[in-house]
Amino acid sequence: MKTEKTIRDAYPASEKVYVDGKLHDIKVGMRKVKLTDTVKIVDGKRVVTHNDDVYVYDTSGPYTDPDIEINLEKGLPRLREKWITARGDVEQLPQITSQYGRMRLADHSLDSLRFEHMKPPYRAKAGKEITQMYYARQGIITPEMEYVAIRENLQNEKLGIETHITPEFVRDEIAAGRAIIPANINHPEAEPMIIGRNFLVKLNTNIGNSALSSSIEEEVDKAVWSCRWGGDTLMDLSTGANIHETREWIIRNCPVPVGTVPIYQALEKVNGEVENLTWELYRDTLIEQCEQGVDYFTIHAGVLKEHAELVKERLTGIVSRGGSIMTKWCVMHDCESFLYTHFDDICEILKQYDVAISLGDGMRPGSIHDANDRSQFLELDVLGQLTQKAWAHNVQVIIEGPGHIPMHKIKENMDRQLSSCHEAPFYTLGPLTTDIAPGYDHITSAIGAAQIAWYGTAMICYVTPKEHLGLPNREDVRNGVIAYKIAAHAADLAKGHPGAQVRDDALSKARFEFRWKDQFNLSLDPERALEYYKEGSKHDGDYCTMCGPNFCAMRLSQDIDTCDMVGKSAQEGK
Amino acid sequence: MKTEKTIRDAYPASEKVYVDGKLHDIKVGMRKVKLTDTVKIVDGKRVVTHNDDVYVYDTSGPYTDPDIEINLEKGLPRLREKWITARGDVEQLPQITSQYGRMRLADHSLDSLRFEHMKPPYRAKAGKEITQMYYARQGIITPEMEYVAIRENLQNEKLGIETHITPEFVRDEIAAGRAIIPANINHPEAEPMIIGRNFLVKLNTNIGNSALSSSIEEEVDKAVWSCRWGGDTLMDLSTGANIHETREWIIRNCPVPVGTVPIYQALEKVNGEVENLTWELYRDTLIEQCEQGVDYFTIHAGVLKEHAELVKERLTGIVSRGGSIMTKWCVMHDCESFLYTHFDDICEILKQYDVAISLGDGMRPGSIHDANDRSQFLELDVLGQLTQKAWAHNVQVIIEGPGHIPMHKIKENMDRQLSSCHEAPFYTLGPLTTDIAPGYDHITSAIGAAQIAWYGTAMICYVTPKEHLGLPNREDVRNGVIAYKIAAHAADLAKGHPGAQVRDDALSKARFEFRWKDQFNLSLDPERALEYYKEGSKHDGDYCTMCGPNFCAMRLSQDIDTCDMVGKSAQEGK
Repeated sequence: MKTEKTIRDAYPASEKVYVDGKLHDIKVGMRKVKLTDTVKIVDGKRVVTHNDDVYVYDTSGPYTDPDIEINLEKGLPRLREKWITARGDVEQLPQITSQYGRMRLADHSLDSLRFEHMKPPYRAKAGKEITQMYYARQGIITPEMEYVAIRENLQNEKLGIETHITPEFVRDEIAAGRAIIPANINHPEAEPMIIGRNFLVKLNTNIGNSALSSSIEEEVDKAVWSCRWGGDTLMDLSTGANIHETREWIIRNCPVPVGTVPIYQALEKVNGEVENLTWELYRDTLIEQCEQGVDYFTIHAGVLKEHAELVKERLTGIVSRGGSIMTKWCVMHDCESFLYTHFDDICEILKQYDVAISLGDGMRPGSIHDANDRSQFLELDVLGQLTQKAWAHNVQVIIEGPGHIPMHKIKENMDRQLSSCHEAPFYTLGPLTTDIAPGYDHITSAIGAAQIAWYGTAMICYVTPKEHLGLPNREDVRNGVIAYKIAAHAADLAKGHPGAQVRDDALSKARFEFRWKDQFNLSLDPERALEYYKEGSKHDGDYCTMCGPNFCAMRLSQDIDTCDMVGKSAQEGK
Repeated sequence: MKTEKTIRDAYPASEKVYVDGKLHDIKVGMRKVKLTDTVKIVDGKRVVTHNDDVYVYDTSGPYTDPDIEINLEKGLPRLREKWITARGDVEQLPQITSQYGRMRLADHSLDSLRFEHMKPPYRAKAGKEITQMYYARQGIITPEMEYVAIRENLQNEKLGIETHITPEFVRDEIAAGRAIIPANINHPEAEPMIIGRNFLVKLNTNIGNSALSSSIEEEVDKAVWSCRWGGDTLMDLSTGANIHETREWIIRNCPVPVGTVPIYQALEKVNGEVENLTWELYRDTLIEQCEQGVDYFTIHAGVLKEHAELVKERLTGIVSRGGSIMTKWCVMHDCESFLYTHFDDICEILKQYDVAISLGDGMRPGSIHDANDRSQFLELDVLGQLTQKAWAHNVQVIIEGPGHIPMHKIKENMDRQLSSCHEAPFYTLGPLTTDIAPGYDHITSAIGAAQIAWYGTAMICYVTPKEHLGLPNREDVRNGVIAYKIAAHAADLAKGHPGAQVRDDALSKARFEFRWKDQFNLSLDPERALEYYKEGSKHDGDYCTMCGPNFCAMRLSQDIDTCDMVGKSAQEGK
C-alpha cells in the first residue's frame, strides 16, 4: 500500500518522545519540535539565546516513530493489550460470536479482501464489569487514565505551568460521566485519549466509502492520513460493499479510537430496505462490531415515533441518515423505535467490550431555518434520559449535537445539552453558521465549532469542503482536519487550557525574530506554510513578499530598539 | 487586458436588475437569481410550485451588466458625478494641485503607464461643506443615502419583511457618526455603500504590489476580481514603484470605495528613510490622493511617542506597518507624531473632498500573547479623542481594530471601542483567534471576524491564506473574500438583519428538493460548488457521492411523507 510511504514522513524538525507514567508502566508519545537559537546583534556583539523545545499533542501514533516497524498487513502494535489482560476481568473467546461475522469468515471468495492477522476477540468475563466508567467509580485509576492525564499536559510540568489535570482528576471526571475514554478492549492498538469539556477539545474525522466510490486501500490511507494531521477519533461511515472487511483493516491500523453508526451496516444487510430492519439483525451487527474493536457507536435511540409529525414544520426535514432511517422505520411499522425499546439490551452488550455510546441527534437541524426547533430539543431531552440509563450500566456516553445553527442560537444548544444530558460530553457537527456556502462548509462550520467548543463542547466533528457535495478526497480531509484543529485550539486558548498558549507564543516569537523555519515547524501544517512562503519568495531574508523589505513592520519594530537608544543619548546630550 | 474577459462572466442564472429611488433619480443595482420550479409527485400527480427570485447584494458593479460597455482604458461610468455637481457645493479645479501629482504628470517617461482619460479633480467651493456627515447633520437625505437604504434592503419590500433601514434612518446614523458612506467626490464611479453596525456587515479586501512583485495590470485585475466575489471596499496597499499611476487605474475602474494608507507612499517618496518623513511631504501626498479619488485614508494618528516604551513588554512588538513607521519617526526625532499634531490640518484637507478617515490601530497586537494589552487600549482612547476632532469638521470616521485576539478577549475589544470611540464604526482585521496556523489564517481569522461582527463590528478586513507568508494571488483573493463573506453573513444572521435569512432559506429549500443547480446558483461561489459536485458525481440524480442513493437522509426524509400516509391509512384501517 502507498500509505506507508507517505504517512511515515516525519514532521519537520520533530522527534517522537515518550513520557513515562508514575503509577503505571506506560509510555506516552508526544511530538517534540526542536527550535533554533535566537541570534541578535547587540552593541556589535552576537548574542545567542536558546529557545526551548515545544511539545505537541500527537495523534499520529506509531507511524511517526522511526523505531517502530509498520506493516499495514499485520496492523499496529497492541499497546493496551497487556493493560487490559492484567486487570483479569476479560477472557479471549475461542472465536467471534456474531452470526454475520462468522458468515463472512466462512466465505472464501472474500479471502483476498480479508485482513490476515485477526486475533480472537476479548469480552468481559461473566459477572465482571470492565468499562473505564466502572473502574473510575470503583476509585481505580487505570493505565488509560494516567495516560490521558500525561497526554493532556504536554510540556506543562517542564515549564512549571500549573494544571488541574491529574490522573485522579481524570478518574473523577469519568466517574461523573463528564468525560469518556473510548477504549474497546478489542482495539488495543489505539492510544488512549479523553473526551470531556475540562480537557483539550478533540476533533473527529469521518471517512468512509459510499456505494458509489472508494476502495479498502483508499479508506485505510485516509484513516492514517487524517490522524497524521490531527484527527483525535475517526468515524468509519462506510456504506458500500465489504464494509465488514474494510473496517477490520482500518481498526487494526488506526492509532485513534474508531466510531461507527451500526444502523448503516444493518441497512446494508437488508439491501437498503428500511422496513426489513429488525432488532435481532441490529443486535448481531453490534456484536460483530464490538468484537472487531469499534470504540464508540452512534445510536439514534432518541428518535421517537412521535417526532415524525414535528418534522413537517421544517424546511429541510431530517438530515441525519440514522434519524431518517429510524423515523421511516417507526412510521412504516407504526411502532416505537427498537433502538429506544431495546436500549437496556444495547447497554448490556456494549458494557462487555467497553464500547461507548454516542447518542445520535437524528433530529439535528439541516438548515438555519430549522435551528433550535421543537423536534431538536425534544429529542435532546430523550437523550438525557437515555444517558442515565447507560450510566446505570456504567456505559460511557457522549451526546451528538447539531448541525446548522446561526451564531446567536449556539449558546442555547450548549446550555440545554448540559442541563438535559447531565453534563455528559457534547459532540457536535460544526455547527454550520450559514447555509449559503457549499464548497466552503469547513469554514462556515469552523466558525460555529470554535464557538460551541469554547462554550463547552468536548469534541467537534469535522466538516470538509465537500460537505453537501460529495465524498472528501485526501486534500479535503487535510483541509477539514486543519480547519477543525484551528477551531479546537482557538477554543482551548479561550478556555484557558493549561499550557495551550505555549505553542502560539513560541511560533509568534519565531515569527517576530524571522526564524522562518521554526515558525513553519511549529505550525499546524508546516508543508503548506513552507509552500506558500516559497511561492512568493526568491530570497531567505528578514521579510516576505507581503510587505517587502522597507515595509516590514516587524523589522521596523525591532529597529526601534536601536534608534531608541540613539534618541536617548541625544536627549541626554542636550 | 485580460480582466475584461474573465470578470464580465455573468453569475449563473442571474440578472442585473435596478431598483429606482423614490426621493432621487437613482437606480440601485442588485443581482436577481432566478430559480427553477419545485416539482413533486403527489398522489401520482405532478404538482409544480413556483419559487420566488432571490435578490442578492451585488458588489460587482457595471461589470456584470451586459448592457454597459466596459473599457478599462476609459474607466467606469461616472455614476455619482451629476449628484455631486447638482448639489452646487463643488468646483472643478483647472488642474491637480499636489506637487507630486504635477511632477508625475510632467514626467513623459511615465506616459506609457498613465491612465489616459484623466479628468480635472473636484473640490469643495470656498466656504462650502460637502461631506455626507455634513449633509446628514443638516437634515439632508442625499442620493447616496437613499441609494444605500435601497441597497441594504434587497428583497424585503417585495417579501413584506419589516425593516428599520429607511433613507431617514441612514441619514440619522451618519449624522450621529454611527455609520459612514465613503464617497470621495473624485471617485464618482463607485456605487454608494454604508459602513455601520446597524447595517449589513461589510468586508474590505486588500490588494497591492510590494517592491518585490506585481504589475499595474495584475493589480487592476485583482481589484475587479475581488469585487466580483463580494469585496465591499478595497484597500490599495501598494508600496512598490509607480503607485501613483497604479492607483489611478484602480480607482477609475473600481466600483467600490477605495482606501489607502498615505504614509506608505510618503515613505516611498523618501526612499524608505523614515527619518526623512515630514508633514509637508505627507500633506502633499494627502492632496495627491484626495484628488485621485481615494475614498478613505488609514491614518495612524493615535500612535504617540509615549507608546514606544510600552511596546517593549510585547512578544511581537508593533506589527502595523503604519504604526511601526510612526513610532520609529517619533523616537528618531524625539518629538510627537506629525499625524497627531497636524490632525486638524488633515481634517481640513479631507473635508474638501469628503474623504473619510480610518483611524489606524498602529498598536494592534500581532500575537495572542499581546492581545488587549496596555498599548492597544491606550491608543484606542486616543483614537476616541481624534474621532471627536474629526466630527467637529464633519469628517466621517471609522476605527481600525485588531489583529490577533483569542476568542474570550474579543468582546472586550468591541465594548471598549464603542465606549472609547463614541460608537464610530469599528473595522477590524480578523481578529485571528490563534497564531499557530500560517497558511490557513483566512480561517483562524474568519472565526474571530464572525464573532466580532456579530458583537457590532461594521466592517471586517479580509485575510487571505497567504497572510504572514507572501502576497496573495487571484485564488488567494477569492478564498479570502469568500471566507469573509461567510463571516459577514453569519454575523448578519446572528444580528437579525432584515431579510438576511432569505438566501439561506432559498438555498436550503433547493438542497432539500434536489434542485442542485438552484443550490449552487444561490451559493457564494457557484463555480466552486459545481466543480466539487461534478468531481464526485457521474450522475445527476437525487443524491450525491457523499451518501449515495440508499443513505441520503433528505431523500429518506421525503419518503417519510409518503409512508406516513401509508402508516395513517393502515392505522385508520385498524
